[in-house]
Amino acid sequence: MCLCNNFRTGSLLNEDKIKRLKRVLTFNNFTEAMIFTQNVADLAEKESHHPTILTEWGKVTVCWWSHKIKGLHLNDFIMAAKTDQL
Amino acid sequence: MCLCNNFRTGSLLNEDKIKRLKRVLTFNNFTEAMIFTQNVADLAEKESHHPTILTEWGKVTVCWWSHKIKGLHLNDFIMAAKTDQL
Repeated sequence: MCLCNNFRTGSLLNEDKIKRLKRVLTFNNFTEAMIFTQNVADLAEKESHHPTILTEWGKVTVCWWSHKIKGLHLNDFIMAAKTDQL
Repeated sequence: MCLCNNFRTGSLLNEDKIKRLKRVLTFNNFTEAMIFTQNVADLAEKESHHPTILTEWGKVTVCWWSHKIKGLHLNDFIMAAKTDQL
């Protein structure tokens, strides 16, 4: 079930000298944003790879990176792609 | 059910010239952090007042403020206190 609107951005962040993959998705309200947050969390648990998830009214920002290597691994790109598919 | 550890901080933020009440809570893993996130979201929906919630592995950061007045209202202090009680 995709509750997101058409507005969807993906970008490469460099925060605290660590490259991260960022996804920003917008929703119609807080509940829909929270459902998406839970879906991302379920995916993260399933894959044992955890992002940061910022949940706001109508908006969720997901950042993926690999803590061990303090940067991006192929797995992060896969997880970002899976986030898009949710 | 309180899954949080003893580490708990509350602070007054001034971000983008808007005063916000921030709560940082730590947990044993991502799942516990996500359960807390859901509890905060349920509280927010119940009270029709929505914070930003940053969910990470073992950590949740909740920020409360009133969008309409671009600052803090009594309600934000109540919501922050209720966050502590979760």
